[in-house]
Amino acid sequence: MNLDTGLERRGGRPAERRRVVRVRDGRVAEGPDFLAAEEPLEIRLDGVQVAVTMRTPGHDTELAVGFLVGEGIVRPGDVAGVTECRSEEGDGGVADVRLHPGAAASAGWQRNFYATSSCGVCGKASIEAVRVAAGPVPDGPVVDVAVLESLPGRLREAQRVFDRTGGLHAAGLFSAGGDLVTLREDVGRHNAVDKVVGRHALDGDVPLAGRVLLVSGRASFELVQKAVVAGIPMVAAVSAPSTLAVKLAAESNATLVGFLRPGGFNVYAGRERVAGLA
Amino acid sequence: MNLDTGLERRGGRPAERRRVVRVRDGRVAEGPDFLAAEEPLEIRLDGVQVAVTMRTPGHDTELAVGFLVGEGIVRPGDVAGVTECRSEEGDGGVADVRLHPGAAASAGWQRNFYATSSCGVCGKASIEAVRVAAGPVPDGPVVDVAVLESLPGRLREAQRVFDRTGGLHAAGLFSAGGDLVTLREDVGRHNAVDKVVGRHALDGDVPLAGRVLLVSGRASFELVQKAVVAGIPMVAAVSAPSTLAVKLAAESNATLVGFLRPGGFNVYAGRERVAGLA
Repeated sequence: MNLDTGLERRGGRPAERRRVVRVRDGRVAEGPDFLAAEEPLEIRLDGVQVAVTMRTPGHDTELAVGFLVGEGIVRPGDVAGVTECRSEEGDGGVADVRLHPGAAASAGWQRNFYATSSCGVCGKASIEAVRVAAGPVPDGPVVDVAVLESLPGRLREAQRVFDRTGGLHAAGLFSAGGDLVTLREDVGRHNAVDKVVGRHALDGDVPLAGRVLLVSGRASFELVQKAVVAGIPMVAAVSAPSTLAVKLAAESNATLVGFLRPGGFNVYAGRERVAGLA
Repeated sequence: MNLDTGLERRGGRPAERRRVVRVRDGRVAEGPDFLAAEEPLEIRLDGVQVAVTMRTPGHDTELAVGFLVGEGIVRPGDVAGVTECRSEEGDGGVADVRLHPGAAASAGWQRNFYATSSCGVCGKASIEAVRVAAGPVPDGPVVDVAVLESLPGRLREAQRVFDRTGGLHAAGLFSAGGDLVTLREDVGRHNAVDKVVGRHALDGDVPLAGRVLLVSGRASFELVQKAVVAGIPMVAAVSAPSTLAVKLAAESNATLVGFLRPGGFNVYAGRERVAGLA
């Protein structure tokens, strides 16, 4: 299991201690509090800047690789390694993904990219470019209803950081039997998913056939796209999906589950992967 | 009050009806459900592409203006108008912000968006890479504790769309006395804030001195930055702030409140704007 949420990593502190003024029922108290860390990371590809993302430090190499794979810029097998460095001020970092000699990035990606922190899809410059080319995911697996409903609880149990800051999103990759394979956290849901995909890309384990991705909040177009590009056939969210997330899942032969809680959930696409619903 | 959440607008549907399979306590039922709409919007400045954002349709002109103002690219008073169009497929749109003759975008904004990497020196991706230049906000106002604690309830009451989809973030601009001035919703929190700022920029009402911005989720660096650039002195979030959000608020003389709920909240910066805490 890849459950290291980054707490112990040198330099990458997902939570930091700060002083806070608490007001409760009219009473005022001061004391320390843990906040989710957020810092800029510059992602480079063979030395060229691709994007700057605001992320929670930790697992930066995974984030960089997962981002480039998820955006369709790099094929997982082409990654030779990642060089990391952090600024001395501790307020940012750089992760430079290097490709194997002879490997190349997808043609034309530069045309479609801006380095802005503000856009949900990283500032791609034309509407056509929002969609990353990815084939449909293959059929299977079939997941039991009881297993599906157990996933949010399993994710929360493993979320050590969340309990301290209340400020981190989580992405968990599960087997079809409900075993948690990889957990990553971040102030940004999309970063948490990138970190999961990046971990498996670095391990040579992409496409992620037969697995289920659970995200702690809503399911956006962007999250479903990252899953589909990584070959994940089933995406489940604790909260609501968007229209475009549902459309993309349906077009990609993927399953999209929303409002997943103990005792119930909604299936928006790909019901055949839920046992008893085929 | 600007409380039109866009439901009635031609072309901009913040929520759409879709079929869904519901599983509850082992029982399966099919029926219609409302989903938060998510579509790409291309933002242009005098015909030049600046960014594409995934947003909930509605108030696109406000979103485009608010985005450009919040990123420090355009001064609010320089906006002459916005031209909108939607693709025939209904899967996206374009908002082109036009400046008055003689007005110009901030010099060098393209440098912040297009990827340019001059050297491999560590620390290039420091906070300067994402920080928009903005002076500190002026002192005041002072907000009563009871008023502050009432804001989330007032926001929720006004969130007509939220109750149908469960999938929309909200940003509400309040007076210091707790009156809701402008409410906007979106699948993306940052878009909701852009829409609020854009509305007031179009009305000639920026900087937004003396007002309080409430966001429905977490407070990130990006949200605080958008508020500070628009001159909003106080940002409150229903959930947790990040480290960089707190740092930016403190450096900008702004107040940042987190975990705002009936009966309590935390103050992370600028306590002097909360009555009784100065």
